[in-house]
Amino acid sequence: MSTTVGQVIRCKAAVAWEAGKPLVMEEVEVAPPQKMEVRLKILYASLCHTDVYFWEAKGQNPVFPRILGHEAAGIVESVGEGVTEVAPGDHVLPVFTGECKDCAHCKSEESNMCSLLRINTDRGVMIQDGQSRFSINEKPIYHFVGTSTFSEYTVVHVGCVAKINPLAPLDKVCVLSCGISTGLGATLNVAKPRKGSSVAIFGLGAVGLAAAEGARIAGASRIIGVDLNASRFELAKKFGVTEFVNPKDHNKPVQEVIAEMTDGGVDRSVECTGHIDAMISAFECVHDGWGVAVLVGVPHKEAVFTTHPMNFLNERTLKGTFFGNYKPRSDLPSVVEKYMNKELELDKFITHKLPFAEINKAFDLMLKGEGLRCIIKMED
Amino acid sequence: MSTTVGQVIRCKAAVAWEAGKPLVMEEVEVAPPQKMEVRLKILYASLCHTDVYFWEAKGQNPVFPRILGHEAAGIVESVGEGVTEVAPGDHVLPVFTGECKDCAHCKSEESNMCSLLRINTDRGVMIQDGQSRFSINEKPIYHFVGTSTFSEYTVVHVGCVAKINPLAPLDKVCVLSCGISTGLGATLNVAKPRKGSSVAIFGLGAVGLAAAEGARIAGASRIIGVDLNASRFELAKKFGVTEFVNPKDHNKPVQEVIAEMTDGGVDRSVECTGHIDAMISAFECVHDGWGVAVLVGVPHKEAVFTTHPMNFLNERTLKGTFFGNYKPRSDLPSVVEKYMNKELELDKFITHKLPFAEINKAFDLMLKGEGLRCIIKMED
Repeated sequence: MSTTVGQVIRCKAAVAWEAGKPLVMEEVEVAPPQKMEVRLKILYASLCHTDVYFWEAKGQNPVFPRILGHEAAGIVESVGEGVTEVAPGDHVLPVFTGECKDCAHCKSEESNMCSLLRINTDRGVMIQDGQSRFSINEKPIYHFVGTSTFSEYTVVHVGCVAKINPLAPLDKVCVLSCGISTGLGATLNVAKPRKGSSVAIFGLGAVGLAAAEGARIAGASRIIGVDLNASRFELAKKFGVTEFVNPKDHNKPVQEVIAEMTDGGVDRSVECTGHIDAMISAFECVHDGWGVAVLVGVPHKEAVFTTHPMNFLNERTLKGTFFGNYKPRSDLPSVVEKYMNKELELDKFITHKLPFAEINKAFDLMLKGEGLRCIIKMED
Repeated sequence: MSTTVGQVIRCKAAVAWEAGKPLVMEEVEVAPPQKMEVRLKILYASLCHTDVYFWEAKGQNPVFPRILGHEAAGIVESVGEGVTEVAPGDHVLPVFTGECKDCAHCKSEESNMCSLLRINTDRGVMIQDGQSRFSINEKPIYHFVGTSTFSEYTVVHVGCVAKINPLAPLDKVCVLSCGISTGLGATLNVAKPRKGSSVAIFGLGAVGLAAAEGARIAGASRIIGVDLNASRFELAKKFGVTEFVNPKDHNKPVQEVIAEMTDGGVDRSVECTGHIDAMISAFECVHDGWGVAVLVGVPHKEAVFTTHPMNFLNERTLKGTFFGNYKPRSDLPSVVEKYMNKELELDKFITHKLPFAEINKAFDLMLKGEGLRCIIKMED
């Protein structure tokens, strides 16, 4: 057993002291896990748009100083009271949303929106005692979405930890703890295209390409990528995208363009931009009678979805999803297995790798829109 | 074989000569069925709101003189060229929408919106030759939604005819050819509530009560009826409605009232009024994580559905349905069987009976909002 059990661990963490300012590599103290908590040694992290969004802190409550990061993979260092599902040495993915297994959502086969551990971006402390487990000279450093993986060690609620196959390469499967699972699950769990069907994907970033990967796995015969950036199409081909539509190239709504390409509409669509116009187009571009549109991208607070109700009456379906409808603990291990058995391709999402000391370069890459996922190796 | 085969039949029909004026009982000529057509002897008809709506002809193209009627049951008198699925003597329900069995919709397991025979309220003629089969002194009398059942004999496309169990009482099952199937199927085929779940029904007319009947059959434990007319609740109890909400009794949106009654929202809702505010409430009153709302009522042309897209992102589903997603030929026979084996109760929908000669009284009853279904006996 580790000699650190029950002790405060001093380790490196990248601290966001202020909105939009480069992270600073600090030595932090990480308290032992309390009841129903787990302390993890993070081996690999990756950067997701949501980290950048809350680092910029435009339009939300700024919570600083804070340790960001929520896509990662690591190993259990120690566990708190009451934790029986994982043990020191287990390989795990920490997840920004949880699964208590006890609330109405966890007991529902259809929902993954756990009442206890649902994402809360305003909270910077642990739910057990309202305290942070991170500090520098006894001053608290706040958590981020219950994960704070830009630290060599972190403490998370056991409900936010998926135990995975110990043979899985952590430098690859770390991307499954947020964006890739979100897009993949939106297609496989919610849109559910049939073999041979047509699927439109709005937004060809990492989440949209993961949705395309889901359509490829499901055997879709046409995968139509929609993006305002034409340069994305070349990359998107690797993810099974067969056709490309740039709304800028047309002087009519993109839903009409897609309807013309597909004799009335696609069988399924997945919206991954969060822009309200794209949401409306994604809904209206599906075929009457059987079309299903799935919303993934998170909208602005003031956004209003509008459409003529006959678009519904003509037997179209509109659904939204959160984390691809995956229940973190119950379902993520099987997503890792999809990668292990080569059904799911992850390597193509990983375009950059950096050592932890250079984490700010990963922010720069994302701000420039370069690449898809940058893996950050936590150990020297 | 009938001696009328191949002959023009002279019979009684209730002709709508002008918008909103009482129907006039006339002797009409009914031509023999052409290719893929069937001539039916109608034994029982019932009156549906849609008949009244097109008789009033407010806001649509007026098509007169016309023989209205689309909820009915009868017997095949003769068949035209190419008809093999039904034969003289078969008991059938004519349906306002069809199933060609050959188009993409008919081949889809999910759709019932046949491309060839989908409802067309503007068309007053047969699709085979663009002619009417009804005339008076050689002047055409127009058809209505391919059925025109307010006539002792009518001609319909074979794709709009469901062959049913000959033991089924036609004075009861005639109501299955439109409204009752529409509401029932919206719940059983589209909303699909689980045993023990909660269902809200917006609008407690015949279609809404049929949706409630579907919820009762599915084993819902709470069926919440929503209507602006409190007097409907007493009747609605017969259809399994357990609680009643009148939006007029509350000074907050009805979706909030329902959320408070149900710890966050109902599991399913079915909207049967066609009013846009009710549509929005029906969507927003379902529980996050798993709620499904189904739109049945037909909206005004100018209606706009609006909601915050986060209501979708929080894993709510909105679907629309047409004729309860039943494929007329393939599925209606099994609905009749549900009645025959006492799973489905129909008698409680039938509140009035009238002889054909008094058909205008049925219009008066509906205009006054009295009762649910009035059965019209065609033979003296």
